[in-house]
Amino acid sequence: MRVKKTFNESEEIVVSKKEIRGFILGCMEKIDCDAEHAQQLADILVTSDYRGHYSHGIQRLHVYVNDIASGACAGTGTPKVVKEKGATAWVDGANLLGPVVGNFCMKLAVKKAREFGIGWVVARKSNHFGITGWYAMHAMSQGMVGMAFTNTSPCVFPTRSSQKSLGSNPICMAAPATNGDNFFLDMASTTVAYGKIEVAEKRGATMIPSGWGADAGGVETHDPKVVLGGGGLQPLGGQEATGGYKGTGLCMMVEILCGIMAGSAFGKNIRQWQTTDQMADLGQCFVAIDPECFAPGFAGRLQTFLDDTRDLSPLDEEEPVLVAGDPERGHMAMCDELEGIVYKKSQVVHLVKLANDLDIPMFRAKRLNDVLACESDSD
Amino acid sequence: MRVKKTFNESEEIVVSKKEIRGFILGCMEKIDCDAEHAQQLADILVTSDYRGHYSHGIQRLHVYVNDIASGACAGTGTPKVVKEKGATAWVDGANLLGPVVGNFCMKLAVKKAREFGIGWVVARKSNHFGITGWYAMHAMSQGMVGMAFTNTSPCVFPTRSSQKSLGSNPICMAAPATNGDNFFLDMASTTVAYGKIEVAEKRGATMIPSGWGADAGGVETHDPKVVLGGGGLQPLGGQEATGGYKGTGLCMMVEILCGIMAGSAFGKNIRQWQTTDQMADLGQCFVAIDPECFAPGFAGRLQTFLDDTRDLSPLDEEEPVLVAGDPERGHMAMCDELEGIVYKKSQVVHLVKLANDLDIPMFRAKRLNDVLACESDSD
Repeated sequence: MRVKKTFNESEEIVVSKKEIRGFILGCMEKIDCDAEHAQQLADILVTSDYRGHYSHGIQRLHVYVNDIASGACAGTGTPKVVKEKGATAWVDGANLLGPVVGNFCMKLAVKKAREFGIGWVVARKSNHFGITGWYAMHAMSQGMVGMAFTNTSPCVFPTRSSQKSLGSNPICMAAPATNGDNFFLDMASTTVAYGKIEVAEKRGATMIPSGWGADAGGVETHDPKVVLGGGGLQPLGGQEATGGYKGTGLCMMVEILCGIMAGSAFGKNIRQWQTTDQMADLGQCFVAIDPECFAPGFAGRLQTFLDDTRDLSPLDEEEPVLVAGDPERGHMAMCDELEGIVYKKSQVVHLVKLANDLDIPMFRAKRLNDVLACESDSD
Repeated sequence: MRVKKTFNESEEIVVSKKEIRGFILGCMEKIDCDAEHAQQLADILVTSDYRGHYSHGIQRLHVYVNDIASGACAGTGTPKVVKEKGATAWVDGANLLGPVVGNFCMKLAVKKAREFGIGWVVARKSNHFGITGWYAMHAMSQGMVGMAFTNTSPCVFPTRSSQKSLGSNPICMAAPATNGDNFFLDMASTTVAYGKIEVAEKRGATMIPSGWGADAGGVETHDPKVVLGGGGLQPLGGQEATGGYKGTGLCMMVEILCGIMAGSAFGKNIRQWQTTDQMADLGQCFVAIDPECFAPGFAGRLQTFLDDTRDLSPLDEEEPVLVAGDPERGHMAMCDELEGIVYKKSQVVHLVKLANDLDIPMFRAKRLNDVLACESDSD
């Protein structure tokens, strides 16, 4: 079944990882992106959707395509280490795809962590690198505690400000517990990401909670349309009285670890999201820490901490206490069961245009209802 | 004028740093605390009040006194490096005063940053170490970006939980700009600290904003008395809908960098605040990063970033946009002008008992109104 022809027949579809991956590689090949770079992009976008972070997955493919097709981002080349001292390195991302720069930097950080206990690598001239967790995950797969940060295009009103000047600057840490369990924090420094407001609006919500967003002049609003129509996000904590100045502080902390340390664009001077008139020149920071350099038994203690937290008596029996990463674990288990990733058609319908523009076949999908019916038959 | 006799005559008093320092040293000498350790404690408590963080200054002196007097914390000894690899070290705090452990660790982190570009030092068997910013400030005084973290006694309800299991686990970063200006973030991972709720209650407030605190069963409350009477704090972001799960994630991230990495007490198993039946065995983490290992010109770029942020057009002309550290800078300037630190008598009245118990003279103070009258005369 070609989605291209049948796309409107179903609200929800299931697409195999292989199909999505193939589609991404097909697009990137058409715009002469280095094949190995395209694979790195495909890996992170598929993983993002698999983890349930749809706003950072294939939904954004056209942004990467436009960046390279317009020449704003380089499709070939290699990041370079500009400066290196002990456990640290400063990398020039050579304006390559964010995942190419990020993977290069985190691998270097892990190598340094093996030698010095920690690796701290900062990159300039990078591009949007997808989910921050991807890089921390790589460090974790090597037995390390991984952290990653990036600056982003300005979309946040600092506390008291009527102007947007900060990105949603994510904070991320992944730490390995036992038997594949882990702590996996990957959060924007804002109360919510734009994606969450878009979802609320698409579902017909006319009210969003306090602290989510503001109108174009920085005044808090509860109307999702106003936020999406030229408004912006509020820092974690929302208004000043409810701790928003701490979210502002965290946003700025990330910018200091990224743009200021890297000597890249920073703050209000970062190019607007989805524009291609100049290179993004993002700053990013990658950290790997070898927990074996400290008290032995890190993974076991972390497991106890995670289990203790999950075992807390909940306020509502229907809503158990979760630790960072649990929602994603639930989503991945669902995808495994369905042997593919579930999308709402609205999340991917714009890719039909991309497929047509680049003259490549759209990915194949199954209707979710059909998949569920098959499963029911085989029970 | 002896405060002991005249204490109730004035709402607000001014005390010179020298007087406070002498009082702290006097108390610690009486309980046989190492003189050099006492000086380290005095330095941080005075600095805390000078910066306006009264909840972590001399107001807490009796806690340190009780810890040592009861034998729960050691008054003499030296922290020891247990393990060392490259840029990292694992330190045994030998159950000494938190500032003694913290200063030892941050000095080591700075030394490592000079050699390896970064230093990452984790301590077990530490005690309450005062304001986290003190340690980051030391790194900053050496031209480094400093970060520090500590776990604390459980007082926070994780999102969805009806039980307290996390501390208010602070996150701190200090980074040097130009001409003594800096970025100085020192925040609990909760919406507010207990101190802020105490202040609200003392001022007669019957309502606190959403997201600050919960009752003993974890249900959000707006009544400060309920929070203070056995309730607890909410993580930054407050309720789940307003991003509280991110605050929970930050609280846990800090615990992983501290208790889990250090092999100290962690989470719900940390002793209750102000109890002395067992040692605190806190875990703490100290980081120094040499910004010169990355893009040259860090301080200048940071200054631009700070100035750009302060220059943003405010929502309310009366409330300019601030960067982390600005409120403290304002407070320090006020103290400098008054040649002492301003206290509300309610903040220090309990120290009269401490002075009497230890049989040392209370510190000398001036009434704020007298100081202001003098200044007015000399105008």
